[in-house]
Amino acid sequence: MSLDRLLGRIDEMHNPSVAGLDPKLEYVPRFLQDAAFVKYGHTLEAAAAAILEFNKALIDVLCDIVPAIKPQAAYYEMYGWAGVRTLVETIRYAKGKGMFVITDGKRNDIGATMSAYAAAHLGTVDVGGVTAEPFGADALTVNGYLGTDGIQPLLDICEKLDKGIFVLAKTSNPSSGELQDQKIGDKPVYEVMGEMCETWGSAQIGAYGYSTVGAVVGATYPEQLKELREKLPHTMFLVPGYGAQGGGAKGVAAAFDGNGRGAIVNSSRAIMCAWKKEAGCSEADFAQAARREAIRMRDDITSYL
Amino acid sequence: MSLDRLLGRIDEMHNPSVAGLDPKLEYVPRFLQDAAFVKYGHTLEAAAAAILEFNKALIDVLCDIVPAIKPQAAYYEMYGWAGVRTLVETIRYAKGKGMFVITDGKRNDIGATMSAYAAAHLGTVDVGGVTAEPFGADALTVNGYLGTDGIQPLLDICEKLDKGIFVLAKTSNPSSGELQDQKIGDKPVYEVMGEMCETWGSAQIGAYGYSTVGAVVGATYPEQLKELREKLPHTMFLVPGYGAQGGGAKGVAAAFDGNGRGAIVNSSRAIMCAWKKEAGCSEADFAQAARREAIRMRDDITSYL
Repeated sequence: MSLDRLLGRIDEMHNPSVAGLDPKLEYVPRFLQDAAFVKYGHTLEAAAAAILEFNKALIDVLCDIVPAIKPQAAYYEMYGWAGVRTLVETIRYAKGKGMFVITDGKRNDIGATMSAYAAAHLGTVDVGGVTAEPFGADALTVNGYLGTDGIQPLLDICEKLDKGIFVLAKTSNPSSGELQDQKIGDKPVYEVMGEMCETWGSAQIGAYGYSTVGAVVGATYPEQLKELREKLPHTMFLVPGYGAQGGGAKGVAAAFDGNGRGAIVNSSRAIMCAWKKEAGCSEADFAQAARREAIRMRDDITSYL
Repeated sequence: MSLDRLLGRIDEMHNPSVAGLDPKLEYVPRFLQDAAFVKYGHTLEAAAAAILEFNKALIDVLCDIVPAIKPQAAYYEMYGWAGVRTLVETIRYAKGKGMFVITDGKRNDIGATMSAYAAAHLGTVDVGGVTAEPFGADALTVNGYLGTDGIQPLLDICEKLDKGIFVLAKTSNPSSGELQDQKIGDKPVYEVMGEMCETWGSAQIGAYGYSTVGAVVGATYPEQLKELREKLPHTMFLVPGYGAQGGGAKGVAAAFDGNGRGAIVNSSRAIMCAWKKEAGCSEADFAQAARREAIRMRDDITSYL
């Protein structure tokens, strides 16, 4: 139940990190791009095909050391419906390799429409009596601005199909405070949202003490991470902003509980583009460079726990 | 510049309403579903094909009387990548018929990722030196929870490509007040968000006095509509919740300025499912039933302006 599947995999691998797959075409080595251009021309289909090969190669080298991937929907939508097909196929491939998949979509809407998003990303749909799974992720990031009735359809699917959600609380970007740090009474908006996460998850708490409802809290705000960790004991944190955005492992340690559990830290560009940064790395070695960076990140984070 | 293209079409047609295309498969007449099942089996591709035929028939009968469509992304994602392809093709078809297209995606993310969403839904992407247009909508709904740096990439594209955005302020759902009605100082969150819309749009104000940055304000909250109309003089409103959700034309009139401008009212189910509601209507007459409902809605709303 709940996010236990994810927490269990983190324990098994001694690695509380997730690889963000946010693949802009420019992150993909030239030889993979060229192979796709030869086959499909300079089209969105070619971009989508090159990205799928890139993702599969990364998943192959990460699946035995990293518990989860987090594909960011925007980077697939950027390549149209073909890009979205690559998202579907990336999710399927990663699950086939045993990985937990968090689709980063930050979806939000009124109840009826949220039911459609929930069915799309985590659930199934009926097509003339036949059940189909549109995307099939294990968890979805969502935005709670619309309140409970925009979250309830997700909770129903979390319970029925053993899925999870992560709700935005304090995001990692520079201007997150414009709304999120504003005070409602004596509490900042991000804390009000965090408390809603505790409420929404209260009926679905798993064996590790965490519910199906996690929160997104940025690595770039270590003080808020610490504060929210204390105040939200049943809410697992998805922590973006480590590495490329400037969050360090020491600050990120505050996201974890006394047992070193309760959070998962994301890195996207540093892993995907490791081949560009590593001295002397050839393009052909892009996947192993990603693996080396994923191991470095794991060791960096766990050294503080 | 700005939302002038939309405001101009509203003036021309004397119709400040938008047809929401939120097509669940069950809204599609049986004969269209069956034709798709014969061709594609009981698959997501079949659902997507049936929905595309449904949408095209609606666009054909609405394009000379309704200025815009608002496809809701969730209902396309619900049918996987094939559903998303139907979204792309629906947008293209409607634009070909001269309609203004607002993709209702409520997208939100940090700046770098918002650039990807902006390129995806409103802009273009480069594929090895060739420019492609992934979705090509005229406007996108967005969620402002992340603040300015999650909005800036959209403003850049609005200016460059003559596009627009609508930011969630006060949503139409029953629990919208849980966060949105909470007070920051002496102002509710929805007003703080509305003021941000005024700020974000301040450098891009068009001939009608409205900027490229609109706000979503629900028809189900007529008092807030009235209040925000007074406080946000340069912000056009996209008003969901008329009809099926319970908002009436009298209340909705408060969304408009003294010249009867500055808002567009959405109806989805009432138009799409008019054939199910209208006494004695045959399935085959679904499109004309939608047109009759669109005319009834137009006359209902304009009677109060």
